[in-house]
Amino acid sequence: MNRIIECVPNFSEGRDLEKIEKIVDSFRAKKGVKLLDYSNDESHNRCVVTVVGEPEPLKAAMVEAIGKAVELIDMTSHEGQHPRMGAVDVIPFIPIKNVTVEEADVLAKETAKEASEKFGLPFFLYEKSATAPHRENLAKVRKGQFEGMKEKMEDDMWKPDFGPETIHPTAGVTAIGARMPLVAYNIKLDTNNLEIANKIARQIRHLSGGFRYCKAIGIDLEDRGIVEVSMNLTDYTKTAVYRAFETVKMECRRYGVNVLGSEIVGLVPMQALVDTAEYYLGLENFSIDQVLETRL
Amino acid sequence: MNRIIECVPNFSEGRDLEKIEKIVDSFRAKKGVKLLDYSNDESHNRCVVTVVGEPEPLKAAMVEAIGKAVELIDMTSHEGQHPRMGAVDVIPFIPIKNVTVEEADVLAKETAKEASEKFGLPFFLYEKSATAPHRENLAKVRKGQFEGMKEKMEDDMWKPDFGPETIHPTAGVTAIGARMPLVAYNIKLDTNNLEIANKIARQIRHLSGGFRYCKAIGIDLEDRGIVEVSMNLTDYTKTAVYRAFETVKMECRRYGVNVLGSEIVGLVPMQALVDTAEYYLGLENFSIDQVLETRL
Repeated sequence: MNRIIECVPNFSEGRDLEKIEKIVDSFRAKKGVKLLDYSNDESHNRCVVTVVGEPEPLKAAMVEAIGKAVELIDMTSHEGQHPRMGAVDVIPFIPIKNVTVEEADVLAKETAKEASEKFGLPFFLYEKSATAPHRENLAKVRKGQFEGMKEKMEDDMWKPDFGPETIHPTAGVTAIGARMPLVAYNIKLDTNNLEIANKIARQIRHLSGGFRYCKAIGIDLEDRGIVEVSMNLTDYTKTAVYRAFETVKMECRRYGVNVLGSEIVGLVPMQALVDTAEYYLGLENFSIDQVLETRL
Repeated sequence: MNRIIECVPNFSEGRDLEKIEKIVDSFRAKKGVKLLDYSNDESHNRCVVTVVGEPEPLKAAMVEAIGKAVELIDMTSHEGQHPRMGAVDVIPFIPIKNVTVEEADVLAKETAKEASEKFGLPFFLYEKSATAPHRENLAKVRKGQFEGMKEKMEDDMWKPDFGPETIHPTAGVTAIGARMPLVAYNIKLDTNNLEIANKIARQIRHLSGGFRYCKAIGIDLEDRGIVEVSMNLTDYTKTAVYRAFETVKMECRRYGVNVLGSEIVGLVPMQALVDTAEYYLGLENFSIDQVLETRL
């Protein structure tokens, strides 16, 4: 695959394995599409799928999966701990290789258009695809959840971007849009004082004056007797991993605390590591194309 | 390709493009083999090919190319600035993906055995495949060049590892073996004093007491009015890029000189960047499998 987009649809079914398999089947044995992972959570009653593909085949598979979910999942009887508003709750498209975030945005919109016409399902565009600032944040879009969405959508602020003006009776409404790959990044401090981690989290996160693409909270790692600043970097090209690290180190000094180390949870784009090496080694004129593995 | 070895054979033909194409054709249109690059140098009268492949198909293609070179290149009339001892001067096998250096070593030996039997060509095993310490270094193996090799091989110290006991009359002798990917790495200093770069080069290179897998010289970058410490890191897993960088920075202090930045020339394995990020960010439990691109 030369051009790659990742898609991480969240389906509101985490208990009926037969239904889950039927939905996931949409991503199997398709040329130009590769299912990387899927996992269901019974208490959340939710299934998260990770799939990559070339733009067009990925769109076709995603539309098929939406159709299956609309057919199989009934939100009127859905219970689970995780907030949700639709049978397909959210569909992020993430540019991975030789694809821009603008192209991922186009694909998200095309997918929403096609699926809304085929299945009578309304869509909100969110994140980088959002058509207004108040629609960027998924939590805000989803607020009210399935049960409150019918009333919410009567407000002009919450007209859907595609499809019918009100919820699908059983499948609700879906958020769809382009976003950058997320880097889950934790920095460990040599203290058990959670308040210090929380103060630093507030200093570096966007919400309270910090970096634009940084979400952060303090977390108590009781078993190790330390705390960490736990972050989501939502656009590592603009809020770099090394910048978060060096800033936390800098803030630690005022508390007489040291950084023990850090941790990347889950996947990270190669470019984020390249950026890190570029910064610390002061690399001149380095390109990701110089990474041997990209030539293979 | 799931298991990948890189091979960078050097052929002693840099002027006759027709002959070069015939040799390089051995690496084209072969399943499990991918020709990445080849370039010839007229003054060196030499052609360097970069090819990757799965072990077995790569070996077969390499044996075929050796046969073509033996047939087409006559060392008795070869002239060029670069030292050389054979029609195929040197064949390094480099482990890239899901292959150990031990497996690359086995492949080098199998290739030498098969080609020596087919074409009556003698082989010296060098680098990680060397059968004695004095045969590890290519420059030492090649010393005397094609013209002096017949006499050199009469010495018991220089019996070949495969093939006839003396040179092939027109194709000479070939060095073959496994080696780690080489990282060409230069560190720029904010001085035009070449002596400082040379002193630091001597401090960090293996030859004069430095790191085991580091070769280094000082170089004058006249157009920029600065100097650099120019290095080859011959095993980045044992002499790390960041360690070379931090050590040069440390040595710079005694001369009141600063490091301006650094440069990676050509290709670098992804693991070398991972190691760099791990060091500077103090990453805990990070694996290259967490790099998103490795999942594709």
